[in-house]
Amino acid sequence: MADGYALLDTPAPQAVTPAPLSHRDEQARLLALEAQYCSHGDTVHYTQFPKIFSGCEGSFMFDDEGNRFLDLQMWYSAVNFGYANPRLNNALKRQIDTLPQVASQYLHREKIELAALIARDAEAKFGEKGRVHFNVGGAQAVEDSLKLVRNASNGKSLMFAFEGGYHGRTLGASAITSSYRYRRRFGHFGERAHFIPFPYHFRGAKGMSKEEYGEHCVQQFARLFESEYNGVWDPKTGQAEYAAFYVEPLQGTGGYVIPPKNFFIGLKKVLDDHGILMVVDEIQMGFYRTGKLWSIEHFGVTPDVIVFGKAVTNGLNPLSGVWAKEKLINPTIFPPGSTHSTFNANPLGTAVALEAMKMMAEDDYETMVMEKGAYFLRGLEELKRRHKIVGDVDGLGMALRIEICEPHDSYTPSKRLVDLMCDEGMKADLETDGKRYGLVLDIGGYHKNVITLAPALTMSHAEIDLAIKLLDQLFTRVANA
Amino acid sequence: MADGYALLDTPAPQAVTPAPLSHRDEQARLLALEAQYCSHGDTVHYTQFPKIFSGCEGSFMFDDEGNRFLDLQMWYSAVNFGYANPRLNNALKRQIDTLPQVASQYLHREKIELAALIARDAEAKFGEKGRVHFNVGGAQAVEDSLKLVRNASNGKSLMFAFEGGYHGRTLGASAITSSYRYRRRFGHFGERAHFIPFPYHFRGAKGMSKEEYGEHCVQQFARLFESEYNGVWDPKTGQAEYAAFYVEPLQGTGGYVIPPKNFFIGLKKVLDDHGILMVVDEIQMGFYRTGKLWSIEHFGVTPDVIVFGKAVTNGLNPLSGVWAKEKLINPTIFPPGSTHSTFNANPLGTAVALEAMKMMAEDDYETMVMEKGAYFLRGLEELKRRHKIVGDVDGLGMALRIEICEPHDSYTPSKRLVDLMCDEGMKADLETDGKRYGLVLDIGGYHKNVITLAPALTMSHAEIDLAIKLLDQLFTRVANA
Amino acid sequence: MADGYALLDTPAPQAVTPAPLSHRDEQARLLALEAQYCSHGDTVHYTQFPKIFSGCEGSFMFDDEGNRFLDLQMWYSAVNFGYANPRLNNALKRQIDTLPQVASQYLHREKIELAALIARDAEAKFGEKGRVHFNVGGAQAVEDSLKLVRNASNGKSLMFAFEGGYHGRTLGASAITSSYRYRRRFGHFGERAHFIPFPYHFRGAKGMSKEEYGEHCVQQFARLFESEYNGVWDPKTGQAEYAAFYVEPLQGTGGYVIPPKNFFIGLKKVLDDHGILMVVDEIQMGFYRTGKLWSIEHFGVTPDVIVFGKAVTNGLNPLSGVWAKEKLINPTIFPPGSTHSTFNANPLGTAVALEAMKMMAEDDYETMVMEKGAYFLRGLEELKRRHKIVGDVDGLGMALRIEICEPHDSYTPSKRLVDLMCDEGMKADLETDGKRYGLVLDIGGYHKNVITLAPALTMSHAEIDLAIKLLDQLFTRVANA
Amino acid sequence: MADGYALLDTPAPQAVTPAPLSHRDEQARLLALEAQYCSHGDTVHYTQFPKIFSGCEGSFMFDDEGNRFLDLQMWYSAVNFGYANPRLNNALKRQIDTLPQVASQYLHREKIELAALIARDAEAKFGEKGRVHFNVGGAQAVEDSLKLVRNASNGKSLMFAFEGGYHGRTLGASAITSSYRYRRRFGHFGERAHFIPFPYHFRGAKGMSKEEYGEHCVQQFARLFESEYNGVWDPKTGQAEYAAFYVEPLQGTGGYVIPPKNFFIGLKKVLDDHGILMVVDEIQMGFYRTGKLWSIEHFGVTPDVIVFGKAVTNGLNPLSGVWAKEKLINPTIFPPGSTHSTFNANPLGTAVALEAMKMMAEDDYETMVMEKGAYFLRGLEELKRRHKIVGDVDGLGMALRIEICEPHDSYTPSKRLVDLMCDEGMKADLETDGKRYGLVLDIGGYHKNVITLAPALTMSHAEIDLAIKLLDQLFTRVANA
Repeated sequence: MADGYALLDTPAPQAVTPAPLSHRDEQARLLALEAQYCSHGDTVHYTQFPKIFSGCEGSFMFDDEGNRFLDLQMWYSAVNFGYANPRLNNALKRQIDTLPQVASQYLHREKIELAALIARDAEAKFGEKGRVHFNVGGAQAVEDSLKLVRNASNGKSLMFAFEGGYHGRTLGASAITSSYRYRRRFGHFGERAHFIPFPYHFRGAKGMSKEEYGEHCVQQFARLFESEYNGVWDPKTGQAEYAAFYVEPLQGTGGYVIPPKNFFIGLKKVLDDHGILMVVDEIQMGFYRTGKLWSIEHFGVTPDVIVFGKAVTNGLNPLSGVWAKEKLINPTIFPPGSTHSTFNANPLGTAVALEAMKMMAEDDYETMVMEKGAYFLRGLEELKRRHKIVGDVDGLGMALRIEICEPHDSYTPSKRLVDLMCDEGMKADLETDGKRYGLVLDIGGYHKNVITLAPALTMSHAEIDLAIKLLDQLFTRVANA
Repeated sequence: MADGYALLDTPAPQAVTPAPLSHRDEQARLLALEAQYCSHGDTVHYTQFPKIFSGCEGSFMFDDEGNRFLDLQMWYSAVNFGYANPRLNNALKRQIDTLPQVASQYLHREKIELAALIARDAEAKFGEKGRVHFNVGGAQAVEDSLKLVRNASNGKSLMFAFEGGYHGRTLGASAITSSYRYRRRFGHFGERAHFIPFPYHFRGAKGMSKEEYGEHCVQQFARLFESEYNGVWDPKTGQAEYAAFYVEPLQGTGGYVIPPKNFFIGLKKVLDDHGILMVVDEIQMGFYRTGKLWSIEHFGVTPDVIVFGKAVTNGLNPLSGVWAKEKLINPTIFPPGSTHSTFNANPLGTAVALEAMKMMAEDDYETMVMEKGAYFLRGLEELKRRHKIVGDVDGLGMALRIEICEPHDSYTPSKRLVDLMCDEGMKADLETDGKRYGLVLDIGGYHKNVITLAPALTMSHAEIDLAIKLLDQLFTRVANA
Repeated sequence: MADGYALLDTPAPQAVTPAPLSHRDEQARLLALEAQYCSHGDTVHYTQFPKIFSGCEGSFMFDDEGNRFLDLQMWYSAVNFGYANPRLNNALKRQIDTLPQVASQYLHREKIELAALIARDAEAKFGEKGRVHFNVGGAQAVEDSLKLVRNASNGKSLMFAFEGGYHGRTLGASAITSSYRYRRRFGHFGERAHFIPFPYHFRGAKGMSKEEYGEHCVQQFARLFESEYNGVWDPKTGQAEYAAFYVEPLQGTGGYVIPPKNFFIGLKKVLDDHGILMVVDEIQMGFYRTGKLWSIEHFGVTPDVIVFGKAVTNGLNPLSGVWAKEKLINPTIFPPGSTHSTFNANPLGTAVALEAMKMMAEDDYETMVMEKGAYFLRGLEELKRRHKIVGDVDGLGMALRIEICEPHDSYTPSKRLVDLMCDEGMKADLETDGKRYGLVLDIGGYHKNVITLAPALTMSHAEIDLAIKLLDQLFTRVANA
Repeated sequence: MADGYALLDTPAPQAVTPAPLSHRDEQARLLALEAQYCSHGDTVHYTQFPKIFSGCEGSFMFDDEGNRFLDLQMWYSAVNFGYANPRLNNALKRQIDTLPQVASQYLHREKIELAALIARDAEAKFGEKGRVHFNVGGAQAVEDSLKLVRNASNGKSLMFAFEGGYHGRTLGASAITSSYRYRRRFGHFGERAHFIPFPYHFRGAKGMSKEEYGEHCVQQFARLFESEYNGVWDPKTGQAEYAAFYVEPLQGTGGYVIPPKNFFIGLKKVLDDHGILMVVDEIQMGFYRTGKLWSIEHFGVTPDVIVFGKAVTNGLNPLSGVWAKEKLINPTIFPPGSTHSTFNANPLGTAVALEAMKMMAEDDYETMVMEKGAYFLRGLEELKRRHKIVGDVDGLGMALRIEICEPHDSYTPSKRLVDLMCDEGMKADLETDGKRYGLVLDIGGYHKNVITLAPALTMSHAEIDLAIKLLDQLFTRVANA
């Protein structure tokens, strides 16, 4: 959308006009159905009374009672271009009217052009020829990348990944996702990753600068290759036990942790020296969340594989995909049918994604996102100065973090306070300039005490101001609770 | 759509009006891009020059040159209600205009109502309370079902599945999919299923009736539980090594093989006697493909878990899901976050699926599909009588099969002839009643010699007649090749 | 020993002279210690009051109270040459006096000569060069063979094995041993074998001769290679998912089941056609138990790997080993340190084994064993005619079986009766010719209802007569119980 | 033996009197046979011309040419009581004459008394009731301990172990042994351990004292339990992903690395806090090698499981075993047949072990070993002062280490020099006091540059002096090479 600001002075849009009789009765009916017929396993709604939304626009979500909620998480960064973005919505409708369906063994124009756009961009940036491969859902693209890597390494199936890392919930993705809680009830994981510490400076080794800590983390990893008895390397044959290292340049679920600039250069050198591929998971941070198409572009290395998803369709279709270097993905080594799913390059998804890619090419998202992100971060830093419960704030582009801590030391993680904030945000009773708002927040972090901010890239400065004001109120409220 | 017949007399629709200058140049441009930038790993286009389509309606696909292709596979049974079905397309557009996006930790009306419709239907049919769980893509729903089963069995991770069975291409789904080719290049699969023979009567044991053969297959399976030394059962503790049996009621990729009616009753009894769950994969056969919402309804057993996908949105969104018995999926045993994906119950998908479910409830699909299927099968039987290359025809509802064999014995599988048919079908030069048509066919079967027919359930009798005529021509042409 | 017969007329030997005061007190003391300090996990003593033995000679075990027990199982076929065999005991003592210890990275004469004897014998019989590799304990040799096979197949780690098969209790050996009970409490086994039915004719398909049933079993196995969708074979690349088939020529723990003569020829052809190795486990049946050095010699095929143990030292040392074809085991492909254990070719073990091999070369064990075995089997057949509880008897050389069944049909397996026989045998109150005897029996079989007879190869005809008489009494006694 | 010193003045014993004609011809014959018929996979003889020994006594090995070799490795610490120890050799001969064989489902006195001795000792030292379980070979005992742990943890099969750790070469033991070289050619290891750094101070973090470094290593490990996202711990349920930590108190193959005294106390606390068992592998360091029956006794913690082997029979029989706390191993939780092997408590092995245990109880091995070890270490420290190639020396009891480095910095590991030393030691041309000697040395260490010294505990002071003199000569020789 052109400017989210206008919305601040308008009522909630018509699309969500209330049902004639009673919103409350309808809501109770739905919640009762949900309690009886819906699995809770596919959700993360840990609250007792989950929220029902019925409309959205720009940076706002709406409920049936006319409440408006400023959204600072945008479907976990899947809707970078604002809810109900007219240009992208129209692209979807156009495709519905031309070619809504086509079996994936046949081709359609949008898929081809989308793949070409992404591959050419990578070639220009990284100097590497490559190809693009589609699927649906980030986790399936991660699975595809695992197949790429296992195929390229003669069947090696062990991977490195980061503590704090998150790559999805299929069995294969759970094996390389750090949290043991995601594996605990599901039996044995014979391909469980070896998890390596991420340079999380705020909670890392004391007495080191951020850059020193990054270098320290690289050295700790490099130590594994010192001898065969460190467990992962056979110096006699120059073979590693691990096929690839799965990387989120900024940790997503891990709490939007931003590593030092030197970190990935050091890490990639160790990997290259030992024949280990680097797979970069851009599912959450891709598509200009951090001010670059791929967040890894900030860190001076060329990935071997990129996995993407979420915002590629602005949340209008579960399209995902993989870019890989030609040597890994060319049809000779990775032939037809290596992986496949019915909807892998479905025409509705590719059409929206193609339009989104064109949109990103037409506007200078890089400048805009970096400027807005810096503006937002200044606001957060001011909040940190005023609130003892804010232990740390940081940001890269529009990926921002607020680490909530116990006020006595501004360091002890406080999941308690963050949970309270989310509940309070849902009440839609924060007031500013005579208007009432709710706040949609997302929680992340190793200790579930980080507010991970993924606002719409299209957010206006006035909306950023509003966000800071509402967070200020919220922090005051919960600190006194 | 009301009647596919009308289309037979109309030109290709406007939506696919040709580009001004040259279709051929445009096609060449696209194919060149595809050759350079697209992975072939995500496709099954084994042909040298893959086909580009640009429009579709009802039972027909169109290319830029104005050719029309009668489609007898409907995106592998994902588009049961015809291409560009107006009612469903409109439902999608309506949702775009109301709530196109919402993070999956919040609720929206369509998700809840869709889950309730499916669960209530199952309760009515099977007398079992249960719940519904969503994801994107059939393979992810299969992964979710694996997590359900592993959770319910205290972490057991070994499964039975059928020879000829297909459940997807994630690593977890590949482990329970029979074909070794899908695993060969990807390292070790520590949860590889134990594959059990499916009662594929045409190629099964000689000298038995179909029912006798079904019973024989059940007995062969039951034999495994005779003693601890048969390898899967500890009689001392009444524990099985295997947690579940993954079942396609009709094999899909395996060649639309239809088992004897008594088979699943016998199988389920063995499973129940040994505490092994039955997971029914309805991804390809669900949503009235066989004349029932779920194809397992034909076979007299109550599944423990149903996995669905494909046609639930008529191909407009990669929505998939799982229904499971309450004891397996209630929030106490399968709590929030047991599995999760960003798009798992995305509002565009659930809105279309909800409309599709309503549509199925309003019309008598069961009668209609069984009648059309029987009509189609009579046509196929007539073809079998006339063509020696047809070894077997069969069908249940609108899931039909033609097994192509070498003409000398009408038994030796002929992948060669089927490949030729597919290529010839793409040429769009079959003629009848003065019009030219192409044919879109799909190949399946253990030996890749089966034409698996999944025509639109909305197909008219005239279109069925047309299909038989075109197949007749095609068979004659390849038999002489 | 020259003739076991002499022993029948002599008292229990001096070595087991009783302790001065009370045998019963001493026994009670020991059983109390055992109950408190001994794990029961390493035993198979399922009886409430385990038996303590204190002496042995020839075919007899003795207890402290002067009871004598005719042993028909000889430590599960580990003591083929009779207890306390003077020649072998002396060989052990000689080695104690020369080189009792030497680190395994150095060589000693006995190891080299033993390896050479075995390898030259194999070369003469099979026309295949090969090498010998030592370890301690049969299961460790099985583990070594798994490493040989995995190494030779580029890391494939899945194996075929037989229902009813037994190869040991390490985790790796348990994965290829059929009984699920041996795996149940120990978590996931990611290399669990695919178990194939063994041609167990007595309990197999009805209406087929033994040879027809063998051929049927081969055909059932061959069926797995018919298409990629049978799950184990990729016809496009000619690659199998399985690296080897683990075979006991006669099943040991499975109940001394003897396959038809044509069986392994057919099986080996299928394996050779698909690049799958045959590993023959001779741990229980080797060293003339069946009248040949290796029992596989009866069946007309050349194994790729032979695993041996038990009787190679007549029970005086846990030496085991592997013979493999040169292409699998030569130092280039299987270099120093591929596997290793401290005691792998310990000098005491190799010295005894070398003497045992010489002994076998000097006497005509083949003729002797086949003759005695036939004589013993005739006795068993006579017992079968007279006792309804005997369902089946069979034998090859001195590996004999009696399958105990319920008397009403002489077919329903009766573990109950066999357990009773073992307990009664321990009472040492069977009488014949005015003397009292116990009987030491071993139980095997899928249903634990088979008496597996592995008498000393040195047993005299008089001792065989005695065995038949004692069994006759025992059968009568339990049938009336 | 009483005093090894006498041997220094006597010729090689009679047992190795030369063969009548030519030692060299006989040796050539044997080496030719070995090259043709012996697998090299079961050895670690990496030298081109492996050494053949033919006699041994006390601390000496002999060859056929009358050369004597002072042995400083004693079969990798399997022969703690000196080669050909008369008392133990006689115990073995006595057992040969009484009960040389008995099937393991029956009992014999020596097994019971041996188990009781070990269990009572542990109860006295650790205040923990427990039981003993036998097997053959250290790796099989390690496998048994894995089954104990997996059984006790409801099937969890992941383990922690140390970088530099070694637990054997079966597949299961290889999975918890650090070196990747031992796994590389053998396919996937789905239970590969998570390897944790051992406090190897000489090559560890700089600027810390040994105790500080031990504490640092504990803290690095404890860090893994800080949140669920560190990957191994679910704080919500208090469940760890790992069942046990496998520990060598001193690393064996890893180079006889001695940890700081505080290390295991800190480590055990972390483990206890998170429900993770500690399995102590005493295979190499047990039986007074370090001056205590179990080396873990030096470190102030009570293990949950102890695994032993090697020296328990002084190298006369491959007996091994496991002691475990009652709660892990009592017959209710770990019933008969949980694991089993034919030779698991073979009477020859248990009889020798029982005598060895009695011997250790009769003499004050603790005082003697600590005194001799300190004397030996003083000699090594003097060598370090004089030889730049000696980077580090250390010792605990008679487990001693010399780390050989490049002379320019006395730190860079020099495998080259150590290999040269071993070859030179075999030449038997070191001279002192007019006599010629060889030296038998063993190599260990992460970089294969450590001489790991495991001399006979019965060594005399004169023999220690001799060892220092010979090492001095050897170091001078290779430093000039």
